[in-house]
Amino acid sequence: VSEPRFHAPAADADVRTVSLDADDAHHLIRVLRLGPGAPVRVFNGRGGEWRARVADVHRASVRLELGDPVPTAPEPPVAVTVALAVLKGDQMDTAIRDATALGAYAIVPIVSDRVTVPSRAWNSGRAVDRWRRIAVQSARQSGRAFVPDVTPVRAFDDVVAGAAAGAILVATEPSVTGSIEASGLDHRPATALALVGPEGGWSPREIGALRDLGAHAVRLGPRTLRAELAPTVLLTALWMRWGWQ
Amino acid sequence: VSEPRFHAPAADADVRTVSLDADDAHHLIRVLRLGPGAPVRVFNGRGGEWRARVADVHRASVRLELGDPVPTAPEPPVAVTVALAVLKGDQMDTAIRDATALGAYAIVPIVSDRVTVPSRAWNSGRAVDRWRRIAVQSARQSGRAFVPDVTPVRAFDDVVAGAAAGAILVATEPSVTGSIEASGLDHRPATALALVGPEGGWSPREIGALRDLGAHAVRLGPRTLRAELAPTVLLTALWMRWGWQ
Repeated sequence: VSEPRFHAPAADADVRTVSLDADDAHHLIRVLRLGPGAPVRVFNGRGGEWRARVADVHRASVRLELGDPVPTAPEPPVAVTVALAVLKGDQMDTAIRDATALGAYAIVPIVSDRVTVPSRAWNSGRAVDRWRRIAVQSARQSGRAFVPDVTPVRAFDDVVAGAAAGAILVATEPSVTGSIEASGLDHRPATALALVGPEGGWSPREIGALRDLGAHAVRLGPRTLRAELAPTVLLTALWMRWGWQ
Repeated sequence: VSEPRFHAPAADADVRTVSLDADDAHHLIRVLRLGPGAPVRVFNGRGGEWRARVADVHRASVRLELGDPVPTAPEPPVAVTVALAVLKGDQMDTAIRDATALGAYAIVPIVSDRVTVPSRAWNSGRAVDRWRRIAVQSARQSGRAFVPDVTPVRAFDDVVAGAAAGAILVATEPSVTGSIEASGLDHRPATALALVGPEGGWSPREIGALRDLGAHAVRLGPRTLRAELAPTVLLTALWMRWGWQ
């Protein structure tokens, strides 16, 4: 598809026109230099995508007229929520961008024992807003019609306590193998919670809690990976086992 | 291993002491603030790694005394050469860093029809020197004792013409599937050439050449990936099929 794609959450089957937000409107008018009649695509972030045309451009606002729905890129067979320990700014941005492109169903930033990023960097709503924009842009660029929800930052304990038994997958460093039950990826669950730790890995306390919950360790090879690379490698490993779609 | 690792190509079984290059010496003296007697590790980039101690520090030069060899992180079961279309600066750096961390055996930057980076950016020796330094640093950080060779930039035609029939793997976009024979990853070759294209993908001429050579398409899911992410996803997919070590 060579037509530019835009995210419009209001788009739906019974909707005729949608407006773009300010950033996208600017991109359409100033960067792509499109005007009335230009063909584009619109996705709503919930799995719907349509052909559309620019209806009118007025100063910094753009209205699009929706056309026929189009087939969308298939979503993965398992809804995998990636619970991602907070990394420092650009690494977290990369991790969220790439987890979105690799098909994450939702992204939950977590604070675990070894997170070193100071709380002022993530406990305002600004950080979450930024991560949500990154997820939208990554969905736009990767051709997904679904945008993973990015939740506010949560505590490791709260996230794992709420997870379904047996559907917790933990990306582990080479050194942790053996502490948690080896991979149970042969069974394809309906949903899974995939935990990715910070640079320093999981604390002994956390590993104990995960073992008690019956979490499955997924060893991402014998080499040490940069933390922001782990979601990409973990999701690829899951899809290779469970199918990409 | 919490001891800092250093790359010293001269290290070998019959060598007693090695010197560090200027950058690593600076890192040891100024950043880590280590002095005589401090324990470190040394790897030679060809699969050898040793315990070592700082023997002496003199201004900006450091000599290390080698001790016992240590077990190294296992290498992958297939020597995969990643032939990577030249991307713009920081994307290429990321791709080389990550291909190294994911276990590439060698990295061959290539110019294919749709490479858009101007030749002045890569046809001096400087670019290759930079990429080699990135591969060394990535091996250091990821715990590899082997550093992939990064060759000078070569032409797509030359690289594929020299490849063993049947051992060419092509990372393809969703749209290319069907043009090249579907994946033959069930067979585990001794070596493989893994081709990763530029942002614009492969030209029809290149796809034709690859088909004629019996190349195998490896589809990296139904979503469009950023070019610098493709080596990571491709190598992970290969190791999931062939084993990580």
